Amino acid sequence: MTRSTPAPLTLGIVGFGKIARDQHVPAIAATGLFRLAAVVSPHGGAPEEAGLSDVPVFRSQTEMLAALPGLDAVAICTPPAVRHALTVEALRAGKHVLIEKPPAATLTELRLLLDAAEGAKRTLFAAWHSRFNAAVEETRRRLAGATVRHAAITWKEDVRRWHPGQDWIFAAGGFGVFDPGINALSILTEILPAPVVVRDAELRVPANRDTPIAATLRMEGVAGSAVGTVTAAFDFLQQGEQTWTIAIETDGIGAEGIGAGGGRLDLTHGGTRLSVDGVPMLAEPDAEYQGIYRRFHHLIADAAGDVDARPLQLVADACLVGRWRTTDAFHW
Amino acid sequence: MTRSTPAPLTLGIVGFGKIARDQHVPAIAATGLFRLAAVVSPHGGAPEEAGLSDVPVFRSQTEMLAALPGLDAVAICTPPAVRHALTVEALRAGKHVLIEKPPAATLTELRLLLDAAEGAKRTLFAAWHSRFNAAVEETRRRLAGATVRHAAITWKEDVRRWHPGQDWIFAAGGFGVFDPGINALSILTEILPAPVVVRDAELRVPANRDTPIAATLRMEGVAGSAVGTVTAAFDFLQQGEQTWTIAIETDGIGAEGIGAGGGRLDLTHGGTRLSVDGVPMLAEPDAEYQGIYRRFHHLIADAAGDVDARPLQLVADACLVGRWRTTDAFHW
Repeated sequence: MTRSTPAPLTLGIVGFGKIARDQHVPAIAATGLFRLAAVVSPHGGAPEEAGLSDVPVFRSQTEMLAALPGLDAVAICTPPAVRHALTVEALRAGKHVLIEKPPAATLTELRLLLDAAEGAKRTLFAAWHSRFNAAVEETRRRLAGATVRHAAITWKEDVRRWHPGQDWIFAAGGFGVFDPGINALSILTEILPAPVVVRDAELRVPANRDTPIAATLRMEGVAGSAVGTVTAAFDFLQQGEQTWTIAIETDGIGAEGIGAGGGRLDLTHGGTRLSVDGVPMLAEPDAEYQGIYRRFHHLIADAAGDVDARPLQLVADACLVGRWRTTDAFHW
Repeated sequence: MTRSTPAPLTLGIVGFGKIARDQHVPAIAATGLFRLAAVVSPHGGAPEEAGLSDVPVFRSQTEMLAALPGLDAVAICTPPAVRHALTVEALRAGKHVLIEKPPAATLTELRLLLDAAEGAKRTLFAAWHSRFNAAVEETRRRLAGATVRHAAITWKEDVRRWHPGQDWIFAAGGFGVFDPGINALSILTEILPAPVVVRDAELRVPANRDTPIAATLRMEGVAGSAVGTVTAAFDFLQQGEQTWTIAIETDGIGAEGIGAGGGRLDLTHGGTRLSVDGVPMLAEPDAEYQGIYRRFHHLIADAAGDVDARPLQLVADACLVGRWRTTDAFHW
């Protein structure tokens, strides 16, 4: 089947911070499927700096929606706290909506977003950006039909380096070390051939903060499934080398024939590199956001949506069954 | 439309502890819709004591399912920890399944139970027993179409009186004060005319335990909805009078005409009594489990299921966004 190239859809970016400039704007330009038609920036003036002087800037999404009634889609790039209300407003105005991770502060809010999208009959795409790496897709393909004996997530980074001074991350609802950790769980739920449930967790909260600075999880496949145990170690105080790795030991032979006698897959560098039995297989530069915009366009064309609650569910489950412990106070 | 009285369905009770004897057995007898055909009790011998000497007793559900292939349904009355595997086993064996609250230890497990029920094409009924009171239904009816300005849940009981020595309730995954508290949330989600989300929570965990002994929640309706704020105060150390109350202040006039100028509803005694503007309206003896078995039978007849995740979602959301605090050690 051949398809003629469709006309770009018009898109507004709401919230013009670091992620919008560094990722969304270049990905929109590179894929050519959307035309950036507006930016919402409460402080104004931002797009000129970004070389987008012909793009109109609005102080609020409400103003943008009123001024551009023909706008097709909106990408919400704000901090999590205001994301929910903006997403509902955009859907009700008949726009297709792309939202960053985590898609909501709570599971109930995520459920309400789904209801809003269904009510508006518009595409809601809650993107888990870490999934959009070729090495993640290759890992998923290799694990389909395989038996996973054990997987170990190690997601350790220095919060002072990646989130300097961002107190919101340690405030209630800010996710703490689960803010990066949920990226690992979004990959895990994508690549495993069967679901896992949280059996045990330990969460360490600094004495002067509200969210975990470190966490360990023990997960399991259900009885008789193709997945054994999965552990996760999340840490926000990693010095030296930063680690975002999922090491997978397989037992059986997958559809793709990992090899008799089992095979070991190491998905490293945040999901961008894959080694099989120690041999590098794939190492592609990060093109996550181009994949996100391609998928967003596909979903709109198919009148579909994509909201996967599983990564957020695993975090909530860990908070529900976990043992909360107080640890040393944290200061920047 | 008239319906002839259907023949009773055969049912096995799995787990023959206090709730099975005090509630399930009498409700099955009173409603006459099911015939108790078997009991699973790992320690054996229990039904004789309960005056059910003609009911066969099995050591495990597996044995019961093998011995009685024609069994229609199963009621799982075990502690939460083993509930999941038993429910999946019963569904896969083609049985309709009734489970007690909370329906699962985690949201992921609840999702997997739904998948299992759909796969087996059998009824799964996750009963929230507190909902099966006439006063709860009357409150729901009165709030339909009304505007709820504020609702205050006060759920305070003495854990030493109601759960003496039950260490599991304070162990990770045991829910702590949310074990009774989730009953209040199951009523709340049933009676409110619009959903609420958890905005803030504080959870107090004894220094020598893993689950909260007290919690406060602040919830809100979403912007523009018929519900304002809802607070909840859960406490496991209540001396003297035990309190299980939801006080509701309405602003607008509901479909049933609560009255101009607003109206106040007090749903007390765990949902069994309702007062309107201070005047007692309804006080019926607890017949929760008869209602549960009637509904279970209806669901089976309609080839439907009933698994409402919302109460568990609110608890998980509170754990996710809440501030966890350490409080005094707890000893029985």
